[in-house]
Amino acid sequence: MLNFEFKNPTKIVFGKGEIEKISKEIPTGAKVLMLYGGGSIKSNGVYDQVINALKGFEVLEFAGIPANPEYEVLMQALKVIKEEKITFMLAVGGGSVIDGVKFLSAAALYKGDHPWDILAKSIRTEAGLPFGSVLTLPATGSEMNSGSVITRAETQEKLAMGGPGLFPVFSILDPEVVKSIPKRQLVNGVTDAFTHVLEQYMTYPAGAHLQDRFSESIMQTLIEVGPKVIANPADYEAAANFMWSCTMALNGLIQKGVPTDWAVHAMGHELTALFGIDHARTLAIIAPSHYRYNFEAKKEKLAQYGKRVWGINEGTIEEVATAAIAKTEAFFHSMEIKTTLAEYTDDYPGTAEKISARFTERGWLGLGEHKTLSPSDVQKIVEMSY
Amino acid sequence: MLNFEFKNPTKIVFGKGEIEKISKEIPTGAKVLMLYGGGSIKSNGVYDQVINALKGFEVLEFAGIPANPEYEVLMQALKVIKEEKITFMLAVGGGSVIDGVKFLSAAALYKGDHPWDILAKSIRTEAGLPFGSVLTLPATGSEMNSGSVITRAETQEKLAMGGPGLFPVFSILDPEVVKSIPKRQLVNGVTDAFTHVLEQYMTYPAGAHLQDRFSESIMQTLIEVGPKVIANPADYEAAANFMWSCTMALNGLIQKGVPTDWAVHAMGHELTALFGIDHARTLAIIAPSHYRYNFEAKKEKLAQYGKRVWGINEGTIEEVATAAIAKTEAFFHSMEIKTTLAEYTDDYPGTAEKISARFTERGWLGLGEHKTLSPSDVQKIVEMSY
Repeated sequence: MLNFEFKNPTKIVFGKGEIEKISKEIPTGAKVLMLYGGGSIKSNGVYDQVINALKGFEVLEFAGIPANPEYEVLMQALKVIKEEKITFMLAVGGGSVIDGVKFLSAAALYKGDHPWDILAKSIRTEAGLPFGSVLTLPATGSEMNSGSVITRAETQEKLAMGGPGLFPVFSILDPEVVKSIPKRQLVNGVTDAFTHVLEQYMTYPAGAHLQDRFSESIMQTLIEVGPKVIANPADYEAAANFMWSCTMALNGLIQKGVPTDWAVHAMGHELTALFGIDHARTLAIIAPSHYRYNFEAKKEKLAQYGKRVWGINEGTIEEVATAAIAKTEAFFHSMEIKTTLAEYTDDYPGTAEKISARFTERGWLGLGEHKTLSPSDVQKIVEMSY
Repeated sequence: MLNFEFKNPTKIVFGKGEIEKISKEIPTGAKVLMLYGGGSIKSNGVYDQVINALKGFEVLEFAGIPANPEYEVLMQALKVIKEEKITFMLAVGGGSVIDGVKFLSAAALYKGDHPWDILAKSIRTEAGLPFGSVLTLPATGSEMNSGSVITRAETQEKLAMGGPGLFPVFSILDPEVVKSIPKRQLVNGVTDAFTHVLEQYMTYPAGAHLQDRFSESIMQTLIEVGPKVIANPADYEAAANFMWSCTMALNGLIQKGVPTDWAVHAMGHELTALFGIDHARTLAIIAPSHYRYNFEAKKEKLAQYGKRVWGINEGTIEEVATAAIAKTEAFFHSMEIKTTLAEYTDDYPGTAEKISARFTERGWLGLGEHKTLSPSDVQKIVEMSY
């Protein structure tokens, strides 16, 4: 097991009807900016629940944070925060809204002239403007971590940021919101969370037996409840397990003491930036090729995963590992997720070269758990994903 | 899944050589009281490492906190804290020292005249004097939770306390300390942590699939690494997994969203108070009888545990559940833990009546996950444990 530090101060308030507890979690006298995305929270009742729960606070609203939170839109919200002297933000939405609010949390207290530098120069945020969240779309885990990914349409970029100042003060997770989530987004959520676990698990054995088993637990649970929640989002038990699995998949716990990969995300983000493909689907496109390309380096963990998660008990390490990749792909297919780039866009020729060139430009010269994947490896992996 | 709230703000610093980082975690200018137990930290080198790491701080010491931290001794430490205007405490030891420091954290800021009331009247501590810990004995999980158990020899009582103000600010977990732990205490640690998981898991199915799998993960890991660490405490990988499993067994995570039992602890504490039997061993004495006595209420979870943790794949629910209890007992025996009261004391006759009477006196009229176990049930369970 590798040395690690772990601290996650976010308070989770989980369960049916818990949205009404928001007011207990926000500091008395706070001037609140409530941020959300499109109108879905107005049609599913969450907007009304939140507004009711915020009685007694001065509340402003900022609507229209898009999926893959867009820098230019966030800069408008930043203006509101500064002009109105907001003291607390409440993100009501999924990972995009929460990620956007994290950027705002950092930018509101950032001393430099160009908030984009927080992303471009990887500036860690030690203290941000405090915020909470009401999660309406389980997937990214953003509700209980300190990371964020922001998109800039102007330059077709999608970059990550983070720091200990960016944990939500609280997050309210009411699984009843799941029943009004469209199927496409539920499928994305299961796929996203599942791939988050893979990125932290599918490396090489590092003697972290408990972390391995926790990762396997999350994947087993997603395999068990994912199809149920997609078939019937009103199944509260399935929804609750789906929601908590998504949070636990990326709240820092399972990555402690183990090597992590994240190359699938690095490549996937480029596919979203270039083609606007849903984040989760980009992961499903890249992951199988990534594991096939890096088979030798990952085969022990692939085999452990095949055995424990998929119950493949017969065969050599190589055979079980190979079957495990096929099982993963079949799981994505079973949720009607397509796993080749050509199924999403006709413009795919040249994508591998383009992504590889971008990685070279940014100096991303060593990806993966061994920091050895070069831009030319990236080119080959993306090509395998066509 | 039941509704829940979860917040655990303790920072964990885990791994080889991490003790030297203490000074980064303690507020600058703090006046520190370092508290520890007997002399073991002097012989195993931890004392020197801590003292070196505390250079630059004003440090006082309080030695001699006994196993099952004793109220009278703690009251002496409280006097030092008040007279010397201590602003930060550092617990260096196992669960007893950390639990003792938690009592002091609460008592130092307690406004009432009789600090014993914090225990006797179950007063929750919302804010305590801040403290950190350097864990030298994995077992209780006290390093990452807000609970504590204090003993009062005068009245042969052992009572629990807690509250959100009692999380350590940080805990340093260096698995290298494990190599100098005597075998008896390693065995106790494995047994204690394993039983902690059982208390939060062995109830009835509540649809919390992820929490169930996390609990099973911890038990599987303890079964895997426990015997290894007992055979060779210098096995770093085993020690690290043992240490992290003990922490995760009682840091709040696996109990969220599920019913919990804790009747085994309630009865076990009495055996320690009456006979001075090691805490972990009292749990091993009570647990099998408790599960046999409450077989009907617990058989589904017993069978799930038998199947997933012990790999018992054949048989009816009742048969697998019965075999699972036997496997648990055999696991304790394999570590040379005796599981009947008569193996520890000749004075056992009358114990069941005595414990039952104490529960009646304290008004503990409904124990267990269904709050239905009466003092007469307790009497029968303790009798079955003779």
